[in-house]
Amino acid sequence: MANVAPILVVGSVALDTVHTPTESASEILGGGASYFCLAGSMFAPIRLVAVVGDDFPDAHRRMLESRGIDLTGLEVRKGKTFRWTARYSGIRLEERETLETQLNVFADFHPVLPPAYRDSRVVFLSNIQPELQLEVLDQVEHASFVACDTIKLWLDTARPGLERVFRRVDCVLLNDEEAVQFSGQRFLPAAANVILSYGPRGVIIKRGENGSLLFTRDRMFMAPAHPLETVRDPTGAGDAFAGGLLGMVARTGHDRDDVLRRGMLYGSVLGSLAVEDFSVRRIMQADDREVEERLSTLVDMISLDGSRAR
Amino acid sequence: MANVAPILVVGSVALDTVHTPTESASEILGGGASYFCLAGSMFAPIRLVAVVGDDFPDAHRRMLESRGIDLTGLEVRKGKTFRWTARYSGIRLEERETLETQLNVFADFHPVLPPAYRDSRVVFLSNIQPELQLEVLDQVEHASFVACDTIKLWLDTARPGLERVFRRVDCVLLNDEEAVQFSGQRFLPAAANVILSYGPRGVIIKRGENGSLLFTRDRMFMAPAHPLETVRDPTGAGDAFAGGLLGMVARTGHDRDDVLRRGMLYGSVLGSLAVEDFSVRRIMQADDREVEERLSTLVDMISLDGSRAR
Repeated sequence: MANVAPILVVGSVALDTVHTPTESASEILGGGASYFCLAGSMFAPIRLVAVVGDDFPDAHRRMLESRGIDLTGLEVRKGKTFRWTARYSGIRLEERETLETQLNVFADFHPVLPPAYRDSRVVFLSNIQPELQLEVLDQVEHASFVACDTIKLWLDTARPGLERVFRRVDCVLLNDEEAVQFSGQRFLPAAANVILSYGPRGVIIKRGENGSLLFTRDRMFMAPAHPLETVRDPTGAGDAFAGGLLGMVARTGHDRDDVLRRGMLYGSVLGSLAVEDFSVRRIMQADDREVEERLSTLVDMISLDGSRAR
Repeated sequence: MANVAPILVVGSVALDTVHTPTESASEILGGGASYFCLAGSMFAPIRLVAVVGDDFPDAHRRMLESRGIDLTGLEVRKGKTFRWTARYSGIRLEERETLETQLNVFADFHPVLPPAYRDSRVVFLSNIQPELQLEVLDQVEHASFVACDTIKLWLDTARPGLERVFRRVDCVLLNDEEAVQFSGQRFLPAAANVILSYGPRGVIIKRGENGSLLFTRDRMFMAPAHPLETVRDPTGAGDAFAGGLLGMVARTGHDRDDVLRRGMLYGSVLGSLAVEDFSVRRIMQADDREVEERLSTLVDMISLDGSRAR
């Protein structure tokens, strides 16, 4: 991996408490950046910019370090780490209710890039406030591929900032409801065109178990979700997806259509792993062989050939 | 088309009244078999088995005849044609409420195949009662590919009959909720495996705007839905889809995986046409060139190549 461009990620690192109809887990490693780091680290070196409190467990830090993640940019502040509590319901845990959000040290967070991070060429702006995403962009000097994610909260409360972000990135990731809300368009191709009009080369619309769609100026691609046999904790699927996607961009050194398309399949693989256990446990268990096996299932799922490629 | 095997279809021919938030249409041609016939007739000769009342408009009959559809098996009974009234709502008209169902002459329908139909090799059992589907199977002698569709009503009220149908067909079509309900499994691969255990070689799970999935013993395929720019009347998308799918089987003369996969893409094309206008109007307007153009969009949507195939 020595020759692979490092990926800079900024986002949340949190301690989550997750309830499902049959299980609960408390104070587990969560936050978009955590999922992204551990998914992306299967493909490229990762540089993390985030904040935690002085209560952040050493075990979590060591787990991130064990995957070679550069924690120079992980600020430790006096106080408590961001905490998030949610309950999932529905037959496939497809419904989520946030029970509590304690921003704690995250409330005053402003990302500061260590000098060594400023040359990052591949950048992922996880779904934090648009103003913070812009602060990151002001600090990177040679980015060649920047992708951002967002959440409904910023569509509701920070739309002007979000529009400024969309004008400065290469690829926007969001889910189908967000795309419809942002664009005011009912149908996804029209919704994607509205977002493309801000300037990004690609828009990726995530649809959970229904896969994801890439829209570029004149093409569309549909990546299937990896078919699930189980879901234990849906948290983090989108950030793990982004880890696979940007991992491919970093590994190949470019963002041609074929790279983005294959990267979305890797994203589906990492997303499928994320949901099979609480926190990042299942991602930590996976090795390259398992990732490639799931990838080959996805490649076959979109093949028009009469027999499976070996 | 002289050398293409004819497709036998049995199902409903109806007069529909459809309301959307902005428009209504009354007494328009509807029924699963109607959509199937006109979609399938772009690929193969069609033999129809259905019943209408003596009020069935001549214009509808002439339209079916204009596409070469064999109406020998269209029984005309004294009385009124099957009528169905529904209202669609939701941002993309994704919610449907049936306001009225008048079975009329359909109430006593038993399919009787004209002698010339008995050698049909490709057969589609649209979503009528399982007992009637079985009566058709008892009358065909050399079928090489039989596909069936169903609806929630038969899962609720006629499960034993449906299981007998599943044991005698090559391919089962149903939607995701029906697959989950029938199988008692939360996830689609497990649900499909339950249905495959009855004996069909393939199960196709339809997911509307999220496309469709084919499960065979050891492979999966995901066909994207053709991205929509508009929806005017969602009725008939599933039957039009089946028309494209079985059309490809009839045209090629076999049901290898590559045929079913490409057939599902044609199905997506015909389904996308069905919803763009009331009744079968948009299907009637389409020509081969338009169908092939939409197909090439779908092929590109699942291509891993860096540039669009020409």
